[in-house]
Amino acid sequence: MAPGTLLFVINGHRGLITLLFLMNIGHICCQQFVIPFKAPSDCGAEEFFDISSLSCAKCGSNQRQSTTGLSCICQTGYKTTNLSSDKVSIACEQCPTDKPAVTQDGFGCIRCPGSLTDEGKCQCSSGSVLVERDVNGNILDEARCEACNGDSPALSVPNTSGDRCERCQATFINTSCVCTSPNVLAGGLCFPSGSLSTSVNPSVSYSQLKFSIQSAWFVENLYSSSAACLIFSNLTACQALGNMCVMNMHSFSGLSNDACGLFNTIFRSKATLSSVQGIAYWRVNLPWLYYGDEPGLASRVLQTDPVPIGFSFRGTKKNTDLQLLAAVYNVRGEFLRWEQVGESNLQFCPESATKQAAAFSFGTAYQQSCELSVAVLLVTHPEPLFYDVFMDLGGGENKKLLPLPTLVQNQQYNGRFINQEVMKNWYLSRRIFLVDTLSGREKSLGSSPKVIRVATTVKIRFQLVPRTQEGQIYPPLMSVTYTDVPITDINTQTVSVTFAMEYEMDQVDTRTKTDTALGVLGGLAVLCALLKTVSYKRRIASPLIDVETIGKFLLFFAGDLANVFFVVTVGTGLYWLIFYKAQQFVSVLLPLPMQEEQFVTYIGCAFALKAVQFLHKLYLQVSVDIFLIDWERPRTKPSKSVSGAGDTKRDSSPVSIWRTYFVANEWNELQTIRKISPTFQVMAVLFFLEVLGFSNLALRDPWSTLERPPQAYTPPYSLILRYGVAATLWLCIGLLQVIFFTVFYEHFIEDKIRQFVDLCSVSNISVLLLSHRCFGYYIHGRSVHGHADTNMEEMNNNLKRERESLCGQRGLVPNSDIQTFQVSITNRMRLQYDRIQDSLSRRIRPSRLMDASTANLSELQFRAYNTMNHFLGSVIDHGHSDMDYAVRDKLMFERVLGMEFMEASDKSFFYNDESHSFSNVLFYGNEATLLIFDTLFFCVVDLGSQNFVLAAVLTYVQQTMFCFLRNSLGRKNLVNKMLVDQRFLI
Amino acid sequence: MAPGTLLFVINGHRGLITLLFLMNIGHICCQQFVIPFKAPSDCGAEEFFDISSLSCAKCGSNQRQSTTGLSCICQTGYKTTNLSSDKVSIACEQCPTDKPAVTQDGFGCIRCPGSLTDEGKCQCSSGSVLVERDVNGNILDEARCEACNGDSPALSVPNTSGDRCERCQATFINTSCVCTSPNVLAGGLCFPSGSLSTSVNPSVSYSQLKFSIQSAWFVENLYSSSAACLIFSNLTACQALGNMCVMNMHSFSGLSNDACGLFNTIFRSKATLSSVQGIAYWRVNLPWLYYGDEPGLASRVLQTDPVPIGFSFRGTKKNTDLQLLAAVYNVRGEFLRWEQVGESNLQFCPESATKQAAAFSFGTAYQQSCELSVAVLLVTHPEPLFYDVFMDLGGGENKKLLPLPTLVQNQQYNGRFINQEVMKNWYLSRRIFLVDTLSGREKSLGSSPKVIRVATTVKIRFQLVPRTQEGQIYPPLMSVTYTDVPITDINTQTVSVTFAMEYEMDQVDTRTKTDTALGVLGGLAVLCALLKTVSYKRRIASPLIDVETIGKFLLFFAGDLANVFFVVTVGTGLYWLIFYKAQQFVSVLLPLPMQEEQFVTYIGCAFALKAVQFLHKLYLQVSVDIFLIDWERPRTKPSKSVSGAGDTKRDSSPVSIWRTYFVANEWNELQTIRKISPTFQVMAVLFFLEVLGFSNLALRDPWSTLERPPQAYTPPYSLILRYGVAATLWLCIGLLQVIFFTVFYEHFIEDKIRQFVDLCSVSNISVLLLSHRCFGYYIHGRSVHGHADTNMEEMNNNLKRERESLCGQRGLVPNSDIQTFQVSITNRMRLQYDRIQDSLSRRIRPSRLMDASTANLSELQFRAYNTMNHFLGSVIDHGHSDMDYAVRDKLMFERVLGMEFMEASDKSFFYNDESHSFSNVLFYGNEATLLIFDTLFFCVVDLGSQNFVLAAVLTYVQQTMFCFLRNSLGRKNLVNKMLVDQRFLI
Repeated sequence: MAPGTLLFVINGHRGLITLLFLMNIGHICCQQFVIPFKAPSDCGAEEFFDISSLSCAKCGSNQRQSTTGLSCICQTGYKTTNLSSDKVSIACEQCPTDKPAVTQDGFGCIRCPGSLTDEGKCQCSSGSVLVERDVNGNILDEARCEACNGDSPALSVPNTSGDRCERCQATFINTSCVCTSPNVLAGGLCFPSGSLSTSVNPSVSYSQLKFSIQSAWFVENLYSSSAACLIFSNLTACQALGNMCVMNMHSFSGLSNDACGLFNTIFRSKATLSSVQGIAYWRVNLPWLYYGDEPGLASRVLQTDPVPIGFSFRGTKKNTDLQLLAAVYNVRGEFLRWEQVGESNLQFCPESATKQAAAFSFGTAYQQSCELSVAVLLVTHPEPLFYDVFMDLGGGENKKLLPLPTLVQNQQYNGRFINQEVMKNWYLSRRIFLVDTLSGREKSLGSSPKVIRVATTVKIRFQLVPRTQEGQIYPPLMSVTYTDVPITDINTQTVSVTFAMEYEMDQVDTRTKTDTALGVLGGLAVLCALLKTVSYKRRIASPLIDVETIGKFLLFFAGDLANVFFVVTVGTGLYWLIFYKAQQFVSVLLPLPMQEEQFVTYIGCAFALKAVQFLHKLYLQVSVDIFLIDWERPRTKPSKSVSGAGDTKRDSSPVSIWRTYFVANEWNELQTIRKISPTFQVMAVLFFLEVLGFSNLALRDPWSTLERPPQAYTPPYSLILRYGVAATLWLCIGLLQVIFFTVFYEHFIEDKIRQFVDLCSVSNISVLLLSHRCFGYYIHGRSVHGHADTNMEEMNNNLKRERESLCGQRGLVPNSDIQTFQVSITNRMRLQYDRIQDSLSRRIRPSRLMDASTANLSELQFRAYNTMNHFLGSVIDHGHSDMDYAVRDKLMFERVLGMEFMEASDKSFFYNDESHSFSNVLFYGNEATLLIFDTLFFCVVDLGSQNFVLAAVLTYVQQTMFCFLRNSLGRKNLVNKMLVDQRFLI
Repeated sequence: MAPGTLLFVINGHRGLITLLFLMNIGHICCQQFVIPFKAPSDCGAEEFFDISSLSCAKCGSNQRQSTTGLSCICQTGYKTTNLSSDKVSIACEQCPTDKPAVTQDGFGCIRCPGSLTDEGKCQCSSGSVLVERDVNGNILDEARCEACNGDSPALSVPNTSGDRCERCQATFINTSCVCTSPNVLAGGLCFPSGSLSTSVNPSVSYSQLKFSIQSAWFVENLYSSSAACLIFSNLTACQALGNMCVMNMHSFSGLSNDACGLFNTIFRSKATLSSVQGIAYWRVNLPWLYYGDEPGLASRVLQTDPVPIGFSFRGTKKNTDLQLLAAVYNVRGEFLRWEQVGESNLQFCPESATKQAAAFSFGTAYQQSCELSVAVLLVTHPEPLFYDVFMDLGGGENKKLLPLPTLVQNQQYNGRFINQEVMKNWYLSRRIFLVDTLSGREKSLGSSPKVIRVATTVKIRFQLVPRTQEGQIYPPLMSVTYTDVPITDINTQTVSVTFAMEYEMDQVDTRTKTDTALGVLGGLAVLCALLKTVSYKRRIASPLIDVETIGKFLLFFAGDLANVFFVVTVGTGLYWLIFYKAQQFVSVLLPLPMQEEQFVTYIGCAFALKAVQFLHKLYLQVSVDIFLIDWERPRTKPSKSVSGAGDTKRDSSPVSIWRTYFVANEWNELQTIRKISPTFQVMAVLFFLEVLGFSNLALRDPWSTLERPPQAYTPPYSLILRYGVAATLWLCIGLLQVIFFTVFYEHFIEDKIRQFVDLCSVSNISVLLLSHRCFGYYIHGRSVHGHADTNMEEMNNNLKRERESLCGQRGLVPNSDIQTFQVSITNRMRLQYDRIQDSLSRRIRPSRLMDASTANLSELQFRAYNTMNHFLGSVIDHGHSDMDYAVRDKLMFERVLGMEFMEASDKSFFYNDESHSFSNVLFYGNEATLLIFDTLFFCVVDLGSQNFVLAAVLTYVQQTMFCFLRNSLGRKNLVNKMLVDQRFLI
């Protein structure tokens, strides 16, 4: 039921009450408690704002609103009586015609000696006071106007409310409360003439906006402050003058009579007096605004003497607290208080206390920026405050302070922005303000400002003393940048402000060391690359130095140089990580982001060069020469098979090709196995960085905790530390994986490489790999049982016999177990090989236009295949006396240099190789290159995006892509070289 | 050169100057500008703090420090003259003995009528004023004490500084400035007697601390405020009384005369007057403190009428701005201003403006907590402020306000904490304060408080109108919890405060829907599981219903129920994601964290059940029966091979086992391939969530932007949305991968399953898989060329002939291509199979104790192998008439139900199966199960840890683990079932 709706009418009182009750219930349950909004300003002239009901209420008769709007007062000509009928509000009564004016307290009526004010009260001329009551408080019938006696000894003038005579200002003492010419009246003071020219320049120039205005504050106070400072040595006047100079951003030219000019005039005039606190730039009674203007003074002040305290990050002497104190003055030059810097003064941006406090922990790079509303600034900073900032050096009772030199970026010296030039020209100063909404007021101090000036960047820079072991620093430099904001629309305008703490040290030493390391290792890299080129030349049996040789040299050099860059960058990263994060007394500080650029360039070089090396290796691997030698001979009557060539046996049962397929298939699967699991690598690194919080080690602060509370301040990341953490983690986890796989997994679970060698032996198939023209690898796989192409039973018997050592050993040389060899073959043999290979792979060219998988193998190729099989088999069997070979061990030195000393001129050499170095033509044997390439890829992506997850994902994609590429190109190569159909390589 | 060190002595002035200059340079360059710290309080009684040099300086003679410490004043008995010698500081002069007192302004000497004060000035008795100058400002020789006339009409009393008579307070008007008995003088007012008992209870009770104190503020003001409110209807007095009640946290008992008791007494006494603004609980002149105490009023107020505005998240009518206004009163009851809520009042914690503003965006769950220092609170809140909070309903000129009902958690009603009980008992109120440091002062208002009271939790709860389409809400409820903090050590004490905005809607509807869906689908799941059990029973050819049957039923049911839970949870997650994040007019709000518990339980169930299903499948897969049938017959003279048994042929060339090895090896490699790349899946999901920022969709706000600026407020995550986003992403990417692999990759790159079938055909080997006792799969691999065990040339010729369709088709049935079948075999055949298998796998048991890989295969087993080969081959060749089979197509319905209708009682059935359903015994055929299991695993880890990276890493580890498990168990199974040596399965 809606309230106020009458559905039925009941006679009698009870019914009416019930109805009212119902209406009331309805009112409670079904109507929103919505009230109209009224503010005191919304009420009419004869209304007041009822603070109880938050609405406008009518005033009583003859009343009007008071100035606050919260109550009523009597209208003009009415006096107040308390006798209102409800005892609540006041009552008003008209004054009789013989006493037309109302007394000042409003409760009585009175006659006036002169005219009445607009409010209906008496008024007197200036210089005299209004008297309404006698000395005992009795109201006079007629008010009196009494003149104040300005002469000595009375020396009185009317007080501000004009109802009493009081003593006049002290500077008037000789002039009987009137400042007679030639004395000068200024700022309420009376100055003797001649001591200071009255022509001063009260304009404030906004060079960023290219205009200047006559500031009301300067007009009113510049002359009087200067004069009071100079003549009366008034302390607050001197401070006020100094503040005006600070508001002008310390700028002065030699000629002008502006605030800083006047300050310097007075400063010079006090040269005869001794300086304050033993500091030459600080004169008695004056604030300390400038350091001297000698050239080079800045660097002497900033880089000569260490501050006599040391910082330490941990241990019993842990000291990371920075205490900054500021002496705060208001614009009139009054000293307000000593204030701890940080809480609410220099740190403008609203932030939680914990985060703000982080700024004052030594070593934590701090930067906080935010947008502030101009409207809010105008309210919160009606007047500027001025800060003389000191660093607290501690000392208990005898606390010492170190004044912070300040660099005002906007400071002009005869029109030049000297502080934006080189350090030699800097002109240091003292005292800053944060927001100045005062000097931009043009007409009067009550008007709204045309421009406000805000210290948009306040930065404190700490510089470590070079080679200090006790965490000593030079005096910190405070750098301030002011911005002029012209007021257009205060409600939408914002100002961006920044507060920062920077820590730096001289990086020349470190850079020199890095460059030296690069130089030395670079030299080694040249040597190494030369060696590799020589080895390469020997292995392709070509003595000429041609363009290709130089190309190869460059490729080898790229790889070695990449390693050099990698080692140097990882070393640097690790150096900073360890020395910065673990130091007790502060002895190193991180390079600034600017100084990290060179480092990033090095990483870029390392990555680019490594990529070249990687692609080169990839190309070599997918173009390796490979042939499977099948030792199996057909199982016809042995008498028959000895005499004839391969062709004649074909009508008897042929040798099955399936063993070859099996071996080829397995070889194909070996292509991209690695000594680590690349995906696990990515996942593990991600886990450590993002889940366990190792990424927090890369923050620009001295703490090495992995977990940070979410409400703590998070400093920016250091690129060097990010690289250091990521690369170290990647390498460590990679190394652990390699150890796990080579030591544990391959011994106890499975070793794919050994399995393959084993398989060759069981399947009676040898593998010849030629990675260079005259160099390669040989896996001897001749079955010790003579036959492998047999059924399950015999196969098992063979395996059993071998397990029980009932048959010969597998080695190439009798009574040896060595199955794997590096081979240097003679040029002659290679030529023969090439000749056969030529017809073997002839099909490739014509089939280019057709689908490769449907290309048919020709009769010729099978013959070539058989010839090759036979040729290589007989060479291994010492069947060709002109292509014989010798088996020998590699010399220690040959192993180290990766080069063969013996030239295979008329005899090939088979070098025993128990370390399965044929895996060099697989990913497996190039783990180092791959690992470093992955590391660099991960780090480069991370440095670009500052996102470890993205880096991990992209690294995974890159790994997968190259794996796929290697697999498919490798398979194509196998198909071409071994004549095995693609469909058997699955 | 250290300053002050004299290394050489030069005679003459120039030398001395040079020396001084050198010393000066030394002074500049080598000495720190360190100054001692001095504050005004550090200076002695005859020193002042020189604000220029920041040090203490001596006062002139006869002077002492002023109270500020920044200047000097004359000592007692000395008058000030301006004539100091340096014109800077003042000079003092002793007063002559005939005028021993100093005037009030300090510049003159005077005789006193009475005694002198400690400062050496004249003083008069109370009730009279001191006169030193006549009305014209001339100094009198002797000061006078004049009594003020308190009688009407003068009605004057001395003013506060005691130098003038002024009118006395208005309430005294009838009593001539003296409050005579029986009237009561209280708080500077004079009250008529009898209207209010003077026995009031000024104690504040701290129930959390179990003590109460006599509050100085209450002692001073409680009676006078109540009396002024009741008798004079003084507006501010009424507000001040109300504020005292609020400081008591609205608590009252019926009996006590405490603040709230007095307020209610006055409230009741005004019952006859009309209420304010049409609100029954708001009486004229009084603040509105309480809603009524009728039981159930709270729910009527909070859940009956919607607020007449609607919220909308997007579109032209977008409206998410919440405007809260507060009328602010000070403790004395004065109205201060209307204030926007948020900026600095209710939101205590310092935060950037952007983050704070986020609280007033409708739909953004907001919570901000921080620790505040008690010392800071004492400084910033010397007096409590009181807030009447309203919601701004808009309306331009005629702005309307809705008062927010407030629930004070600590409010006591006759000793009961009713607001901590059920809603029915709640007693709503109005007006809150934030920090009260006043009422805890015991002795005087200047003393430091014993206890402070802080509103530690302020929470505003918005409730959506059920089934609204226009974003309507009920009146928001503001809930306040006060905490009493006893002051022990203000510098270390902190208070934790919280401000929160909560949005909720009635979730009963949603829950009902979810439960209904679960019920219906659960029923389906039972049916489905029953069907599967029946099918299973048919396939194992066992009609009995035994414990194993029930176990199987439960296992099937687990899988189906897991799917039901999964579908319902993903559906719910997606529902909230879409309907919450995409709605225009607000119609749904997210469940609160509390309400999400049931949902999390569902996910847990889904995961647990899915894990059971997954493990069951895994077990079935690694125990499947498999046999490779080799069709190859030895290549001896055909005449010989027809007659004899298998044994006689052995002396001729045996059939090579290598094809079997090849096929077995390939089958082994198929075990764990999937329709998706699981690692890519993990990476892609991580990429979307963490790099592209999809995780931001799970934040508790209505915005669906992926990128959030770093300085924006980050609301907490919603578990439901997190699950919704993660599961949906996982499923979508999984689906896309499946589509990519099945549609693109398997057609254009490689299809491992098809390759395997192909390989079987080429290698002349068939595969029989028995997944159940009498059901399984058959891959027909009989070579169309009769022989496959041949050399490369013939192999290639065969392939070529087949490509050119020069030979028969591969199918089992002549002229068909179908190679893959589902088979239902007869019991008889199975018995025969088991008999042979038995001797085949007999070696397992004895070899348990030995190393499995070295276990030897016995002669018996090879015979069994050959027998099995022969037996199965002849069955396929229709060689056993009693075990014949028929090839047929499966019926549509059979396919759908996954069951065979024909019972294989005396004839086996081979069902054509072109969809390669034999992959059901591989991971490949169970992608759905695996995908859902992975999804649930990922989501469960994430829900537990709220960390997508951790979830991704663990999911990868889980996948790898199960893959490894499946591979090694699967390989062991193959070794056992197929007699293939482990070393060929690589």
